[in-house]
Amino acid sequence: MQNGTLLAAVDLGSNSFRLEIGRYDSGHIERVEYLKEVVRQGSGLDEEKNLSLAAMERGWECLARFAERLHGFKKNQVRAVATQTLREARNRDVFLRKAQQILGFAIDVISGHEEARLIYQGVSHLLPQSEERRLVIDIGGRSTEVILGQGYTPIRMESYRLGSVAWSTRYFPRNQFTAPMLRTAVIAAKAVLDEALETFPRAEWQVAYGSSGTMGAVADILATHGFPAGMITKPGLDWMTERMLRAGNVDELRLDGLKEDRRPVLAGGISVLHALFELFEMDAILRAEGALRQGALYDLIDRDNDQTDVRERTVRWLADRFTTDKAQAARVSAVATQLFAQVATADPLNGRYSQKLEWAARLHEIGTHISHADAHRHGAYILDHVDAPGFSLPELHRMSQLVLGQRGKLKKLEAELADELFAKQLMCLRLAVLLCHARKDPDIGALRLQYKSRQFKLTAVPGWAKQFPQSAWLLEEEALAWQKTDWRLVLDLR
Amino acid sequence: MQNGTLLAAVDLGSNSFRLEIGRYDSGHIERVEYLKEVVRQGSGLDEEKNLSLAAMERGWECLARFAERLHGFKKNQVRAVATQTLREARNRDVFLRKAQQILGFAIDVISGHEEARLIYQGVSHLLPQSEERRLVIDIGGRSTEVILGQGYTPIRMESYRLGSVAWSTRYFPRNQFTAPMLRTAVIAAKAVLDEALETFPRAEWQVAYGSSGTMGAVADILATHGFPAGMITKPGLDWMTERMLRAGNVDELRLDGLKEDRRPVLAGGISVLHALFELFEMDAILRAEGALRQGALYDLIDRDNDQTDVRERTVRWLADRFTTDKAQAARVSAVATQLFAQVATADPLNGRYSQKLEWAARLHEIGTHISHADAHRHGAYILDHVDAPGFSLPELHRMSQLVLGQRGKLKKLEAELADELFAKQLMCLRLAVLLCHARKDPDIGALRLQYKSRQFKLTAVPGWAKQFPQSAWLLEEEALAWQKTDWRLVLDLR
Repeated sequence: MQNGTLLAAVDLGSNSFRLEIGRYDSGHIERVEYLKEVVRQGSGLDEEKNLSLAAMERGWECLARFAERLHGFKKNQVRAVATQTLREARNRDVFLRKAQQILGFAIDVISGHEEARLIYQGVSHLLPQSEERRLVIDIGGRSTEVILGQGYTPIRMESYRLGSVAWSTRYFPRNQFTAPMLRTAVIAAKAVLDEALETFPRAEWQVAYGSSGTMGAVADILATHGFPAGMITKPGLDWMTERMLRAGNVDELRLDGLKEDRRPVLAGGISVLHALFELFEMDAILRAEGALRQGALYDLIDRDNDQTDVRERTVRWLADRFTTDKAQAARVSAVATQLFAQVATADPLNGRYSQKLEWAARLHEIGTHISHADAHRHGAYILDHVDAPGFSLPELHRMSQLVLGQRGKLKKLEAELADELFAKQLMCLRLAVLLCHARKDPDIGALRLQYKSRQFKLTAVPGWAKQFPQSAWLLEEEALAWQKTDWRLVLDLR
Repeated sequence: MQNGTLLAAVDLGSNSFRLEIGRYDSGHIERVEYLKEVVRQGSGLDEEKNLSLAAMERGWECLARFAERLHGFKKNQVRAVATQTLREARNRDVFLRKAQQILGFAIDVISGHEEARLIYQGVSHLLPQSEERRLVIDIGGRSTEVILGQGYTPIRMESYRLGSVAWSTRYFPRNQFTAPMLRTAVIAAKAVLDEALETFPRAEWQVAYGSSGTMGAVADILATHGFPAGMITKPGLDWMTERMLRAGNVDELRLDGLKEDRRPVLAGGISVLHALFELFEMDAILRAEGALRQGALYDLIDRDNDQTDVRERTVRWLADRFTTDKAQAARVSAVATQLFAQVATADPLNGRYSQKLEWAARLHEIGTHISHADAHRHGAYILDHVDAPGFSLPELHRMSQLVLGQRGKLKKLEAELADELFAKQLMCLRLAVLLCHARKDPDIGALRLQYKSRQFKLTAVPGWAKQFPQSAWLLEEEALAWQKTDWRLVLDLR
């Protein structure tokens, strides 16, 4: 990446939307601009987990303002990520379709696991270099991420379904704050976080850091009142809780340093903090500057380089975890990408799509870990649900649909096949699976694939069909399968 | 098992239904009776994979005749298994509900993998003892099973979706038999069987055996015409094929030893045989006597003994394959079965249900291999689709539903909760998961679970709730969850 390149991250959080713009300089990022708007979309989820229209509109309006600032940015300079509220919202597609139009860039809904990884990236890049093993905790609006790491490397991470918005709504109605309410909220929070003590044993880390919203707000208030700066201590938390209990309602609370936009989610945040202090038996949490959005920026740098693209590592890890036949995976991905190169030259992004096709091909047999029968379906299920560092949920879903479509009828992919690049990827993957059916390297040099206006044409050198009657027969069947779609496969096998 | 015990197996195949009754004698089974009826249910599947009413009625009538013969048999003396046609039929529940009523015994739809395992059990018990590594092939109506084994031990097995009924219907319309038709059918068969050469390399076995329908019929005809008895040789197959080509239609074929009921499925069977001979480059397939139904009988003996119950081995294998936390699995299964013993004493079958609860508990975390988020759903998916030797599909599904219900809302299990034993299993599993939430052994001696007319009552010794506020809070939430069902959980925690 060239020094001076501008990079931008948009974080569509449950409480706030944020825009961070930075300038790349020799592996680091200098802040150019930071915008934050309290959108509080997380409280706009109804009982059926549908986002209200009002909550959507607040989001769209905010994104429109961000879009102005992003004018002139290219695709590979921007990463927009959405978290728990949009993970949960059933009608998220309604919001996202318009949101992406308004923003002008794709919005990736990421898993809790991926969110945790990016948070660690953000935090670790803004902390001084050190060998300490640290626990990073991020109390978000509807999810709380916990990561154990060292240096820039996250070792273990998990996302838990609790947060300041969710806990305020559920346990502190009308912003009341009483001792019994707090007790119930803390017990409930500990019930959700319980396994964290097993996953992140106290003996495995030396320092705890807290990043973003709740952590920053509480640390600021405490510093204003003479507690040590840059951290939340147990005595500080207890003092503040005492003040809140005396007020009886957060709306009545008069406290220097408390911002108005924090008021409606403070009670929930405080209860989660108590649960964390009790669970891990901590004395203090240090405040960390970095957060999700910085992580997203550093991830843009990593993606720019194959060697550091964490997705490449993830694909390798998944292939191991689900014990695939590595030789066959390599064979199919080589054939698929060679064919893709013949039909996708005109696309400016063909390198990116070729890379994703290669990943899908390398994972196309992971479903056999469950069963050989319907392995393509199991593979798709795994990709739709596995924790895959570096990948966004839609990115994984696209790969899952390629894996699902590797064989069998094409009807199941009607929606995806509206997209020409998907159709090209799928055609190449299916042909590769078919040509490698005997688990031997096919003579790919004898074949040529062409594409023109919704029609693929596969030409073989004379005599090929006689030499490989099995493959020729499978290709005839394949041509029939595509006739049920808007695409055609024409064969010239002679 | 006592010598002299009568055992019965019912095989609901795609071509024929069969009843085999045997008498147990020191580890072996002597035939008492054998009935076979050609029901040809497999050709009653329409385009949408629905079984026609006529095909259902043929099945019910046959089962009514079998039921007469099974009068007086107890549940643990009978095993009825259904294969490919009922695996595929979308409306199988319509058929099975009435079929089970008529038969008076449960009918287990088994996976292709499990079918292969049982076939090998049947074949190996009826062959002379030997150290040879053998390939056993069973061409069924709609599926073909291939198993590599030694002695009584299947080493590798697979089920392929082709068979005599399916191939006759698809490639030999109106029973015509021409050279081009045969060529297409063989190529198509080889395309489906292709991977078998990789799975069962020629160097890994010494002898091939063929069991059941097609194999027996062809071997019989060849023997009648002077070919070596008890086997199908390549010259024999070629001679017979020549005769069929000359007839041009199987209906016109005059051949000593050909039974009328075999005629409509002979063409398909012959094409699959050719594919196998070509693929494995074999000279001969020896005829084996045992088949699925004998395997089901020997499996009844194994199940009678925990040490040899293959399901126990399967549970251990799955726990390894999907890397579960063994200590937690042991903890939860111990607590669950202890609670179950307190509420299920009156049930005559409580031992069997306790065993299944234990298995489900030992596998309750396998979904974490995919992701910790929604691990219960992933676990259920895995159990619904994994190849699990020894288990029938409904048995696996029941376990999958227990795993699915281990936490969260109970609405998803409305149908299963109509069954009292399921409700008891689920209650005990959920309580066990809850009480072990901190991954430590709970003080189960301090708790007592009782059951009376749809109500569970959990009583704790005085002081328990104070000592374990977290568990007490979780139990209150649990009681609320059950209020949305027809069952109640009442707490006396004091």
